[in-house]
Amino acid sequence: MASTTTERPPVRFQTHPSRYRHWKLRFDGDVATLSMAVDPQGGEREGYELKLNSYDLGVDVELADAILRLRFEHPEVRCVVLTGALDRVFCAGANIVMLRTSTHAFKVNFCKFTNETRLAIEDASAHSGIKFLAALNGTASGGGYELALACDEILLVDDRNSAVSFPEVPLLGVLPGTGGLTRIADKRKIRRDRCDVFSTIAEGIKGRRAVEWNLVDGLAPLSRWNEAVQERARRLADSQPRKPGPGVVLDAIEPEATPTAHGLRCAYRHVEYTVDSEARTAELVITAPDAAPKDEVAARAQGAAWWALRAFRELDDALCRLRMNHPEVGLVLLRCRGSAATLRATDALLARPGDWFVREVQNLVRRVLKRLDLSAKGFYAVADERTTWVGSFLELLLACDRSYVKLGDADLARCGITAANGGLFRMSNGISRLETRFLGTPQSVSDVLAATADFDARAADELGLATFAPDAIDWDDELRLAIEERSAFSPDALTGMEANLRFAGPETMETKIFGRLSAWQNWIFQRPNAVGERGALTCYGTPHKAEFDFDRT
Amino acid sequence: MASTTTERPPVRFQTHPSRYRHWKLRFDGDVATLSMAVDPQGGEREGYELKLNSYDLGVDVELADAILRLRFEHPEVRCVVLTGALDRVFCAGANIVMLRTSTHAFKVNFCKFTNETRLAIEDASAHSGIKFLAALNGTASGGGYELALACDEILLVDDRNSAVSFPEVPLLGVLPGTGGLTRIADKRKIRRDRCDVFSTIAEGIKGRRAVEWNLVDGLAPLSRWNEAVQERARRLADSQPRKPGPGVVLDAIEPEATPTAHGLRCAYRHVEYTVDSEARTAELVITAPDAAPKDEVAARAQGAAWWALRAFRELDDALCRLRMNHPEVGLVLLRCRGSAATLRATDALLARPGDWFVREVQNLVRRVLKRLDLSAKGFYAVADERTTWVGSFLELLLACDRSYVKLGDADLARCGITAANGGLFRMSNGISRLETRFLGTPQSVSDVLAATADFDARAADELGLATFAPDAIDWDDELRLAIEERSAFSPDALTGMEANLRFAGPETMETKIFGRLSAWQNWIFQRPNAVGERGALTCYGTPHKAEFDFDRT
Repeated sequence: MASTTTERPPVRFQTHPSRYRHWKLRFDGDVATLSMAVDPQGGEREGYELKLNSYDLGVDVELADAILRLRFEHPEVRCVVLTGALDRVFCAGANIVMLRTSTHAFKVNFCKFTNETRLAIEDASAHSGIKFLAALNGTASGGGYELALACDEILLVDDRNSAVSFPEVPLLGVLPGTGGLTRIADKRKIRRDRCDVFSTIAEGIKGRRAVEWNLVDGLAPLSRWNEAVQERARRLADSQPRKPGPGVVLDAIEPEATPTAHGLRCAYRHVEYTVDSEARTAELVITAPDAAPKDEVAARAQGAAWWALRAFRELDDALCRLRMNHPEVGLVLLRCRGSAATLRATDALLARPGDWFVREVQNLVRRVLKRLDLSAKGFYAVADERTTWVGSFLELLLACDRSYVKLGDADLARCGITAANGGLFRMSNGISRLETRFLGTPQSVSDVLAATADFDARAADELGLATFAPDAIDWDDELRLAIEERSAFSPDALTGMEANLRFAGPETMETKIFGRLSAWQNWIFQRPNAVGERGALTCYGTPHKAEFDFDRT
Repeated sequence: MASTTTERPPVRFQTHPSRYRHWKLRFDGDVATLSMAVDPQGGEREGYELKLNSYDLGVDVELADAILRLRFEHPEVRCVVLTGALDRVFCAGANIVMLRTSTHAFKVNFCKFTNETRLAIEDASAHSGIKFLAALNGTASGGGYELALACDEILLVDDRNSAVSFPEVPLLGVLPGTGGLTRIADKRKIRRDRCDVFSTIAEGIKGRRAVEWNLVDGLAPLSRWNEAVQERARRLADSQPRKPGPGVVLDAIEPEATPTAHGLRCAYRHVEYTVDSEARTAELVITAPDAAPKDEVAARAQGAAWWALRAFRELDDALCRLRMNHPEVGLVLLRCRGSAATLRATDALLARPGDWFVREVQNLVRRVLKRLDLSAKGFYAVADERTTWVGSFLELLLACDRSYVKLGDADLARCGITAANGGLFRMSNGISRLETRFLGTPQSVSDVLAATADFDARAADELGLATFAPDAIDWDDELRLAIEERSAFSPDALTGMEANLRFAGPETMETKIFGRLSAWQNWIFQRPNAVGERGALTCYGTPHKAEFDFDRT
């Protein structure tokens, strides 16, 4: 069983509204409308038609792009209406044929990405002053209703026909796995017996019962649909403060890719990664430039070229590509480099809450750090010569499973504490990476945060930031062995181990979605009752009826 | 794929110290010593030897029995020393050959039971005034170290050899799934990078580093081992208040089993279940007797015959048997019957914290309710004629996925609120079943708790306690359809759905263990990298080397 490189063309995570095939974005003052009109022929690969506004990864990449651009390019927007452009259909959820014909690994990563996109909607609502209204012009089933659940409010058309539904359990033998079960129980706090009933009724629930059970927030008849949507959107928009324009246009961040002997090297402006498919590792380097804007005005003048914005967008893209296009990579060796002064100036600016653009960059950095936390690959921070672990870059070290810090005489790693380490970038569990690391010794958090000046590798080790701190003599061997060892272990066991160890402490809706819901879905996605020859997912929409082994596990 | 009845002989969950094959229980005043001396030939089925104090389900059934009996029969005990009776070995964890030759379903249910036993140790420490000392006389690996982690303190022999270890990831390609990953990160709050390192070192960590990393609480050389164990046990015992004896001896609770046309009927004294293997359902009935002790003295006089103790022990046994011996059963129809006055008197007594024996019964009821919450079967409460849902029996209704409450004129279900519903029996998530049910409408909790007198089916429906409340005309059809429908769905999807919907609200170490850790382990337990022809679990201990598909999912 040699490591298999995926045969599909690499997935790209960058797009632009001018290239959207599935969404229409229009603006009316402070209300934007994002209409889903999925092109049935526009699937991300061959072999399925995206009927009834069902979606695949390509549709979700566009949605993620739209949400990101709304936050940066359209500060005037205070409410986004998510609606369907098809007649009587909002969205039918993830495309079944796409799921059926995908590998287990692809399904799992597809679900993770869609979950992150739904959380990006909630993140924009919580941190960007943009409220989301799901205007369900027709039936929202499965992932379609899960998308609605990520919005602040849900309005359902009252046409005696349109419903919200989770047909996964009754029809497909899988779970609504894009946060649906967690959000009905924990976000909308629907009674568990009603959640149980709702999740087993294929045709869903409509009309007054949908409101009574809190599945939706309101109903409106077709005759006054547009008016009702506008009224709700108006109220949501008015609930948010205005942000002074203009927006910051996000430029393209395509990396330059060069083949190497055993893989590929991809270089962006501030980020670079090199995949070694034989060793099953990737080297990932992020570099802070020498100069950086000192205040909001200078940052705004640089716009999308501001290194902090650009570098973390690049890192985000690199993480998505590593996940989806390089499944053979099990271990990422992360090095941070560059100017400590730049990092200090940048973090000081990011920590000042005044300007919306600065806050938006702060939001982005937080989300990208979470994307790393949630990536199913091992991460080692490699703090060797000429590496820099200050502030947001130290967060990257703290996000890694291990840190190797080289001791020696010259060019030791520089470390430093900024506001970034004091809780600016909370993890999915709601606490900072330092608090998570030192859950058992809170004093250690204070000790680290008390370090005002830069400190070196040895001090980092003394503060508990190094997993291992070999000296120059042992360094090469120790690191090499640690890499070889991890690369030899079962990738599944490592994924499960990392998912359990990374989130000590509190649990939140977010950690429930990734820790509990996703793990169960991963399990079900492999079971013969779902994907076997006569499994429900295999048989759905075919002349064959699913046949189950009814034993309960 | 017809429903398969397991071919193994049915598992029995009742035993007695006189029949133990694997544990020795001895008493020295207020300190008891539970020594593990697993009989290699004493496996619960053929095909493997329990070498090196490795365990199977039979070993754990004895451990669970010992812990239960210590709580009831030995109130004088304030500290239990868990140690190994073999030379240089504490416990090698779950037996690998047993795991390898077990079905997926058996592995999952085995892990669940062992997890519940470990939690019973922590429950006894928290609620019964019994502290546990793991006296590791030799290496504790895998499940052996997980057992130690469930104890209050861990003492490791310092013999340059004995270590604690999690060899699952490096050697077996699975997780330490009996709470290990959760307990090192969340109970002992060990730094996550150290957890990562520890969980990948097959040979484990010993000596001073084990203390420094908080993997154990102390070391003692062989030369003063017994002395050191006694000192720690003494200190732990002294930290707990004394409980006045004598103990209450637990009698046997063997049910009478009768074959039926499509299955089996098992009758205990207060509990009865009937399995219909064709319909894949079980009917479960628990009945409160007409008379009950009114105070501690009367309860003590009845001892193990006190109905509350007996009935919930029987229910516990029935749940374990349904899980393990009747995998074909996907849906349990639960009816509670009997005297409301008995339930009111019993709950009033259980809620008075004075007497240790009464408190111990309270603890038992809480654990049995949790066993139901964690059973991978659907539960419908069927509140039809002559059923009684008062106090602890109402908790059973609240533990069910759905409640069907019959409306009509005569013999309607009787319901009632007691202290049992106000938080006496908290769920794994740390809150009451009413609080969990009404997470979104806390006022509903107060409304229900305000009901001082018994109330009928209609009032129960109005208070939000019924999922469905059909009248007499629709009752039969509606219930029949609901049963048929659920029995037709994918059992895996239902298990995943129930595991996600039952625990809204807060998460705890306990819910992390069952929700996150177990779900990941279930996933890994199915992956070819673990259980395929060349999977690590398959190949371990054979001449074959594991071969992995290294792609990360």
